[in-house]
Amino acid sequence: MTQRKSFGSDNRARAHPAVLRAIMDANSGDAVAYGADAWTERMTATLRETFRAEDAFLVLNGSGANVLGLSLLLRRHEAVICADSAHINTDECGAPERLLGTKLIGVPAPDGKLTPELIAERLSGRGNDHVAQPGAVAITQSTEFGTCYTLAELRKIADFAHASDLRVYLDGARLANAAAYLNCPLAELADCADVLSFGGTKNGAIGAEALIVMSSGLAADVPYLRKQQTQLTSKMRFVAAQFDALLQDELWRANAVHANAMARRLATGAAAVPGAEIVYPVQANAVFARLDPNHITALQQDWSFHVWGEQDSVVRWMTAFDTTEADVDAFVTSIRSSA
Amino acid sequence: MTQRKSFGSDNRARAHPAVLRAIMDANSGDAVAYGADAWTERMTATLRETFRAEDAFLVLNGSGANVLGLSLLLRRHEAVICADSAHINTDECGAPERLLGTKLIGVPAPDGKLTPELIAERLSGRGNDHVAQPGAVAITQSTEFGTCYTLAELRKIADFAHASDLRVYLDGARLANAAAYLNCPLAELADCADVLSFGGTKNGAIGAEALIVMSSGLAADVPYLRKQQTQLTSKMRFVAAQFDALLQDELWRANAVHANAMARRLATGAAAVPGAEIVYPVQANAVFARLDPNHITALQQDWSFHVWGEQDSVVRWMTAFDTTEADVDAFVTSIRSSA
Amino acid sequence: MTQRKSFGSDNRARAHPAVLRAIMDANSGDAVAYGADAWTERMTATLRETFRAEDAFLVLNGSGANVLGLSLLLRRHEAVICADSAHINTDECGAPERLLGTKLIGVPAPDGKLTPELIAERLSGRGNDHVAQPGAVAITQSTEFGTCYTLAELRKIADFAHASDLRVYLDGARLANAAAYLNCPLAELADCADVLSFGGTKNGAIGAEALIVMSSGLAADVPYLRKQQTQLTSKMRFVAAQFDALLQDELWRANAVHANAMARRLATGAAAVPGAEIVYPVQANAVFARLDPNHITALQQDWSFHVWGEQDSVVRWMTAFDTTEADVDAFVTSIRSSA
Amino acid sequence: MTQRKSFGSDNRARAHPAVLRAIMDANSGDAVAYGADAWTERMTATLRETFRAEDAFLVLNGSGANVLGLSLLLRRHEAVICADSAHINTDECGAPERLLGTKLIGVPAPDGKLTPELIAERLSGRGNDHVAQPGAVAITQSTEFGTCYTLAELRKIADFAHASDLRVYLDGARLANAAAYLNCPLAELADCADVLSFGGTKNGAIGAEALIVMSSGLAADVPYLRKQQTQLTSKMRFVAAQFDALLQDELWRANAVHANAMARRLATGAAAVPGAEIVYPVQANAVFARLDPNHITALQQDWSFHVWGEQDSVVRWMTAFDTTEADVDAFVTSIRSSA
Repeated sequence: MTQRKSFGSDNRARAHPAVLRAIMDANSGDAVAYGADAWTERMTATLRETFRAEDAFLVLNGSGANVLGLSLLLRRHEAVICADSAHINTDECGAPERLLGTKLIGVPAPDGKLTPELIAERLSGRGNDHVAQPGAVAITQSTEFGTCYTLAELRKIADFAHASDLRVYLDGARLANAAAYLNCPLAELADCADVLSFGGTKNGAIGAEALIVMSSGLAADVPYLRKQQTQLTSKMRFVAAQFDALLQDELWRANAVHANAMARRLATGAAAVPGAEIVYPVQANAVFARLDPNHITALQQDWSFHVWGEQDSVVRWMTAFDTTEADVDAFVTSIRSSA
Repeated sequence: MTQRKSFGSDNRARAHPAVLRAIMDANSGDAVAYGADAWTERMTATLRETFRAEDAFLVLNGSGANVLGLSLLLRRHEAVICADSAHINTDECGAPERLLGTKLIGVPAPDGKLTPELIAERLSGRGNDHVAQPGAVAITQSTEFGTCYTLAELRKIADFAHASDLRVYLDGARLANAAAYLNCPLAELADCADVLSFGGTKNGAIGAEALIVMSSGLAADVPYLRKQQTQLTSKMRFVAAQFDALLQDELWRANAVHANAMARRLATGAAAVPGAEIVYPVQANAVFARLDPNHITALQQDWSFHVWGEQDSVVRWMTAFDTTEADVDAFVTSIRSSA
Repeated sequence: MTQRKSFGSDNRARAHPAVLRAIMDANSGDAVAYGADAWTERMTATLRETFRAEDAFLVLNGSGANVLGLSLLLRRHEAVICADSAHINTDECGAPERLLGTKLIGVPAPDGKLTPELIAERLSGRGNDHVAQPGAVAITQSTEFGTCYTLAELRKIADFAHASDLRVYLDGARLANAAAYLNCPLAELADCADVLSFGGTKNGAIGAEALIVMSSGLAADVPYLRKQQTQLTSKMRFVAAQFDALLQDELWRANAVHANAMARRLATGAAAVPGAEIVYPVQANAVFARLDPNHITALQQDWSFHVWGEQDSVVRWMTAFDTTEADVDAFVTSIRSSA
Repeated sequence: MTQRKSFGSDNRARAHPAVLRAIMDANSGDAVAYGADAWTERMTATLRETFRAEDAFLVLNGSGANVLGLSLLLRRHEAVICADSAHINTDECGAPERLLGTKLIGVPAPDGKLTPELIAERLSGRGNDHVAQPGAVAITQSTEFGTCYTLAELRKIADFAHASDLRVYLDGARLANAAAYLNCPLAELADCADVLSFGGTKNGAIGAEALIVMSSGLAADVPYLRKQQTQLTSKMRFVAAQFDALLQDELWRANAVHANAMARRLATGAAAVPGAEIVYPVQANAVFARLDPNHITALQQDWSFHVWGEQDSVVRWMTAFDTTEADVDAFVTSIRSSA
């Protein structure tokens, strides 16, 4: 295993030291199990306030948050409109279909971003009982391509969706990176959604995600659905403690600002290499680049990252809270020298 | 919140310090995500060896292990025979039905233990396409009533089940306590099962369970099923590290031996109190006692525990790895003084 | 195959000639598919009027009606309280669990009839996210044991259920037999339910059931759910035509009155045979009798019927619209002679 | 409602008189329920022989056959590759996702036909537990666009699929039309598939489909899965009787040959109209044509048919066993006069 920093995923990073300290601090005496402890209650209150939310619930991972969130928004027979590149559509092994029985209607979307126009195209079968009926729109912020919806874009989607009797789910596994890019409070990002997730794991937790319920009337069933979907853990205080650390003085934002900056530094460096092309706007903590296939092969000898599309020779480089300028500069040097 | 030790559940205990140390130790540098890291690979190998198993997989909680385990054993249409007191039947909010679509056939079972005879009674509809077809038997070791199957009892169930074309799932959320009581290796307990869970959380982890696949040919689909069932976490090294600590020098056994001893001490003390009756053999770390309703009410003012059956006035007291003799003695004193 | 009349099930009877004539009559020219035809629209209106219902939908069989009906009444995570002898619990191969992911909570119930008291016992876990939450009560009228709820009993169940935030589903596969026994309009029987089925098949159809939605707001999703659950047929006019025949001048009632009378005749005859004991009140078209095992064996040589409980030596005899007095008398003679 | 023949769908046609006669003939005396009757046993044997199949099962409609068929071919976690225009993907309201929890991977496919190359593109995620794993390929014969796979094309798909560890499902709702076009026995068409459906309803039944199991080892679970999926009907003899009529002297083929001929006659006539363009090869009983939007509007005043794509101004005209030359000629005259 290489000692070099991986640009494979922010998931490969260690946990932030403050997160581990918070876990240590929570490890004293007994606590009521399954989320009725003081840590969880305090954290839930903090999340409600931070997001100006109806309610908040802690879960164990991003797939769990996504499935649970969608389950709040769909009537029993309904389907979900999402970008065809959405994580729920491409990277969860069919979990929404399996656990919710819902059809995902994937829409080809440039930059990973849905628009009212793209959503509208999928509504032509409304009222026809042969056609899967969309009940919710799922968007990702920041997107799988490292791009961010602007607040205005989110507002347009939400307005169109709600006017079209569609609920809005926002996959916020990297919401922190979007809030850092847009330099806005989390509550402003959340405002467009009926339900959203807020990811801690990619931001420095060891494994902690939150489900934020914005619309009133949607929270009552969450405890039962969370238990059924195996996302309730007995020693919940240790999940709450992780968010405690991340929300303290907006550590999450500092982590995200740094990761985003490292992505920009990497993009700037790579863009200057002849033959390398940055494919999407670098707004969050991902850089998608097109390189010559031989270039990719050479670079992979020393560095770890994903080849996103074999056919079009595109790679993904991700940065994390603990990526250093030296890591980036060493990587850029390799990109240049292996070109 | 009382400062007194809770006898509510082993879930209420903190984590063992060695578990947290192992998490700290794992927090260095990058690691490949989703279980392809060195910690997980090492732990998987250790579990395979410890259980003499086909394969082993880490998951996040007991419900997740149970649903995933059952999903390996059931053909698409099949049902599960279990004790009506089984955790999967009473305490998982219907998760197996919801996530697997399987019917649970609950059998009234004294002491929470199934027998070949009890299983046989539920096989009369075999081959009748109107009747849900049992495909697996689920047993719990130690049981929900703190009792343990002997190795001979397990062998009889396994032999009968396999002769009857039934697979065996063992819910081992408290397998450590059974192994401590029976003073046997984990592999001997596991031998009866096609698939079992091995619980870390109630034994001192912050949240870690393992799914152990004993029968060959059953492991291939686990990675996909685990992902679909939202039991895959990205920073898996931190789950592996917890088991690292528990398996080191059989810390799990020391924890369980201690918890069991505290339960016996409590049972002995309580049994001497006039009007208190121990309901089940105290073999693992649970004590079920029948007290006068007024006695229960008085005791609840200072101590936290579950009233198991309102109607028959039975309470459950659980001990954990960190329950001290002083905790037990203070509790027994209260039981005596409030009688 | 014996030429004697079967007492095995009303399902074994042929179709009523009027049903086949109606099918023939409907076989002229084109009709819009999937229920948008004139026959279906007319029949839906008739059913709405007959039941004083919100809406009515045609489906293909009883299991389909039951699953579809329950799916209207359950929030995503909820469970169903039913008699443990309920058809949905014992005779549908686990279809509700499989297709809806719902847990069935079977309650031992004398004569197959639930009561408010029996239902209340299953509500103790309300609000506990570890316990499957009942969302609906399912009753059967007439019951699997040939007994009928009185209108007062139905009213008490409905009042209790609705006061307890439970919806009521009524499995009316043999609703006609209950209406005949109680000598009341279908609308009075339906009044207790939020949703019910109305069976045509056991009453003389070749295969036709109706789902009757009584409570407002529950009908909107039926078309999509019916299609998803594969209960929509393209040439729906032929299902509608069957009900046309059965509803014409209350043919369904005449069929049921006759079948019930044949059951009473059979019960009266059998009760006079030494050693034969009628087990349940004979109210609809089923007779449950306890006979000596040798008697059962002897009788089975010439006649076809179900042995209901091997252990307690109980048999079920069912009559149909086309069972004649001569059939019954011949059977009674055999019962007597084989005793 | 117009008295003119509809070109909307073969589903709108009445039943063939021979089908109704067979139902009448089956309506004598009792028959064992749920498929254990003589009619069903005879028909099952006939279907086995006709298709040289492992086994055959009667079901109630096409969606039911498709869901049941797929359920035999998929391991619990697997997905289905199909043309994006496949009926299971576009016209069953998400039934496969809902009832099986499976992801459908829709592939853009010219003429509605998959190829090994198109299938191969969807296999790149094999072995990656984040990616839904294809377990089966679903093809339709004749396709939703009225085209037919040649026997050689089917063979290539089957060979590729089986070499790639994929099972093959064939949706044969209009298999008769393909067999008529290709002038081959049903068994030759079925040979490529592990499981297929054989549609009776669009060929002249009132509601009857068969599920044909070709590969050994796949039939054992069908009775239970069929019951769970609500596709078992009690008076099965009436479903069997419909196939009796259609299989007698290959009535199904005569019906299909006629319907196909009417489609060709219509296509020939329409192609001669200025501005009308036939979009797909007319091989089965469907004609897809592109007309000027005003032309479509004018034609719809007198005739009933589907506008397939609003945007590209394509209509679908379907013929049935009872479409006459006069019907076609009158329609063509209208097409010409309204141009």
